[in-house]
Amino acid sequence: MSDKNRVFRLAARPQGMVKDSDFDLREEPRPELSGDNQVLVKNLYLSVDPTQRGWLERDTYMPAVPIGDVVRSFGAGRVVASTDPAFAPGDHVAGLVGWQDYALLGTAGPARPNKLPPGVPLPNALSALGLTGLTAYFGLLDVGKPKAGETVVVSGAAGATGMMVGQIAKIKGCRAIGIAGGKEKCAWLTGELGFDAAIDYKSEDVAARLKELCPDGLDVYFDNVGGAILDAALVNLAMGARVVICGAISAYNDFTAMEGPKNYLALLARRGRMEGFLVLDYFPRAGEAIQDMAAWMQAGRLKDRVDVVEGLESAPAALRRLFTGQNIGKQLVKIADE
Amino acid sequence: MSDKNRVFRLAARPQGMVKDSDFDLREEPRPELSGDNQVLVKNLYLSVDPTQRGWLERDTYMPAVPIGDVVRSFGAGRVVASTDPAFAPGDHVAGLVGWQDYALLGTAGPARPNKLPPGVPLPNALSALGLTGLTAYFGLLDVGKPKAGETVVVSGAAGATGMMVGQIAKIKGCRAIGIAGGKEKCAWLTGELGFDAAIDYKSEDVAARLKELCPDGLDVYFDNVGGAILDAALVNLAMGARVVICGAISAYNDFTAMEGPKNYLALLARRGRMEGFLVLDYFPRAGEAIQDMAAWMQAGRLKDRVDVVEGLESAPAALRRLFTGQNIGKQLVKIADE
Repeated sequence: MSDKNRVFRLAARPQGMVKDSDFDLREEPRPELSGDNQVLVKNLYLSVDPTQRGWLERDTYMPAVPIGDVVRSFGAGRVVASTDPAFAPGDHVAGLVGWQDYALLGTAGPARPNKLPPGVPLPNALSALGLTGLTAYFGLLDVGKPKAGETVVVSGAAGATGMMVGQIAKIKGCRAIGIAGGKEKCAWLTGELGFDAAIDYKSEDVAARLKELCPDGLDVYFDNVGGAILDAALVNLAMGARVVICGAISAYNDFTAMEGPKNYLALLARRGRMEGFLVLDYFPRAGEAIQDMAAWMQAGRLKDRVDVVEGLESAPAALRRLFTGQNIGKQLVKIADE
Repeated sequence: MSDKNRVFRLAARPQGMVKDSDFDLREEPRPELSGDNQVLVKNLYLSVDPTQRGWLERDTYMPAVPIGDVVRSFGAGRVVASTDPAFAPGDHVAGLVGWQDYALLGTAGPARPNKLPPGVPLPNALSALGLTGLTAYFGLLDVGKPKAGETVVVSGAAGATGMMVGQIAKIKGCRAIGIAGGKEKCAWLTGELGFDAAIDYKSEDVAARLKELCPDGLDVYFDNVGGAILDAALVNLAMGARVVICGAISAYNDFTAMEGPKNYLALLARRGRMEGFLVLDYFPRAGEAIQDMAAWMQAGRLKDRVDVVEGLESAPAALRRLFTGQNIGKQLVKIADE
């Protein structure tokens, strides 16, 4: 075990797309256990999530990362030392490990990591069985409340959350339509994941295609992107539709230019509901989701896909990939082998 | 009974504020009963409603009024002839009577008018006990679902729907705050109607005042106006808030310039819900509302206020009053005495 710790600290609040210079990569001494209820984790994978962009700039549902602090990030790793009897060296854990090689985490407070069951590959533990999988599961089922036979449309469909939303919709007997950028992603959604249709927003008129594919309207629209695509969905809502607001990646690089959904009055004409949620609220029920998702995976009904970039030093570039739409599936950074 | 019928027909689709020249006032022969299941109604009052502006321009939840057709309007009057045994001359009815002296209405289809109970003054039958009262009742209670002790904020608070929303909120044990334009309206809301506070959007910073008045946030926001005021409410939502979308009068004169709520992602951080509704869906339950509202009025707990303009020829000007904010309470046009 190295006695060094490479650490990305926040150097500047990003403007627009994150730049390498927004972060400061330093070599620091490896942190050491200094009291009870602590674990030292060797980070193996970082989870790369759109919401991190917000954390870097401003207070949202969590306070912004202070300048000079370790860049906040979910991730997974292996316990290398512990003063909490619930965690033993060798255990796999997931939590807010940050962009660094080693994380010293308190186990008594809210930063307590989750112990991962043995046998689950870490990439899946951060994807289908991780936060984005839970986001899809609870956002779709608890907030969207789809009924069998209904049409579910999801944007950002080839991303970590979107790919799960469409597949869960299918498992629940719904028709699933994905909106994604580019032919490759669309072909994968329909060819591999079993989506009923996919719309390539880069080459197709989303509103027109939705109208064509859903003459009776969208019953559930799960939105990861905001902007013009949300507006296109709103004009195509079915009566009594549910719009699940999960995120708005199109706006995260410039909150000041945020535009609201111009067509929100469709909620009135269509008696629709638009509802936001945060997966954090569902942590007490995580077990339900993980049980279902793991069973579906085992039965071959739910597929996971990760998009892995190698090396801690690639973390800023990996985050940019989300905003340029380069990732297919869950974006991860692999920091180290076991 | 005159054998003439003054009729406003739609001459042009309005652009911006309605102009007199958008309507054509003609004298035509009074319509006559021509078959079974018809009533001839002498119109006494017209209901003047923001939603009429939309009907004049484009298809929404109802098709647009065709050019050359009688201007669509709710109103109330007295049956003067009938071929439906359920309606007798002298009965008071309310329905889609149009901007005209006499309306010939079919009673077998969806245009069937409602018979009004004897003893209810027609102005109240169109206001507290009419569509706008029902809109407030079901929108607040069924969609907003306020609990006693919660804070309810309503925009357009001195209008027909808004004044009822705040009063019903008080009756249900909530704190009620109104947003309205001008000192006179605000003084009336707090002084006469018992609102806990009122914000004058013409002279006050709505977002700042909401923050001051509701440090714990808005539990229910009932929106009649859209635009900047909706955005100000969104940044002040309490956790789990319900935003009831009833209308967006700020946008009705120019749908092309419609802006969406820039701060809609507050729904995510605050786990909020934004929901639209149409009072039409609640017609089968109208009895519940009318019973409650009438009892509250009788007990002196709910006050009605109407703002009456005289003469059919004033109808276009009366409609403009809604958009310049001149009306206090329900805007009506009085066409004739009994």
